[in-house]
Amino acid sequence: MKIDHIGIAVKDMEASNALFKKLLGIGHYKIEEVASEQVATSFFALGESKIELLQASDPNSPIAKFIEKRGEGIHHIAFEVDDIYAEIQRLENEGFIMINPTPKPGADNKLIAFLHPKSSNGVLIELCQSIQ
Amino acid sequence: MKIDHIGIAVKDMEASNALFKKLLGIGHYKIEEVASEQVATSFFALGESKIELLQASDPNSPIAKFIEKRGEGIHHIAFEVDDIYAEIQRLENEGFIMINPTPKPGADNKLIAFLHPKSSNGVLIELCQSIQ
Repeated sequence: MKIDHIGIAVKDMEASNALFKKLLGIGHYKIEEVASEQVATSFFALGESKIELLQASDPNSPIAKFIEKRGEGIHHIAFEVDDIYAEIQRLENEGFIMINPTPKPGADNKLIAFLHPKSSNGVLIELCQSIQ
Repeated sequence: MKIDHIGIAVKDMEASNALFKKLLGIGHYKIEEVASEQVATSFFALGESKIELLQASDPNSPIAKFIEKRGEGIHHIAFEVDDIYAEIQRLENEGFIMINPTPKPGADNKLIAFLHPKSSNGVLIELCQSIQ
């Protein structure tokens, strides 16, 4: 298991792309819309991990609601796993609560599934597995 | 630059060490008190990065205040840099506001300096450099 990315909720992708370029000293390497999550995403490479900026593409998007409640900031951590189905089974057996008991397509050509932050110390965790 | 660690504020280190062991499938590899920050820390290795759990060791600790305001959850992201003094200078020139314009000793035998979240999209960012 490794940190695949850290997701950061932003209001204005263009402004935040410029800000993170200054911060990290590198520009984003791609932009991707994820219709199922109602977000636009932007990725910055950082060693074996990535920073993912998330901007709501709809007022009902989970990102819009997050920003309304808590403001801009870190939204989730994503862990890359080899077998997302086996990992979900293992975590459910350990008592963790999945928001997505069945993986769904996410950004970056991956299958993803979120855990409920209530069962993980207030941290929203995403599991992801690259689709071959 | 790479992600050195993600800091997570927790109320009860013992309970959270057990929870993250189940979550990550590995135990913490060390515990360290950081007197200057009034925190106890616990580290989990994850590829080239780490998860750092933070528990307040004093009611006036920044971690105690964070949990009071926002609850348990992700507190900061730390980026490892080669030259923390040069990086602070670069970021200040770019308009970022440092909480610590001068680095100070942190956990894990490192020099650390925090950026103000107001200048970085609501994200509390730590720079760190290993002390040789």
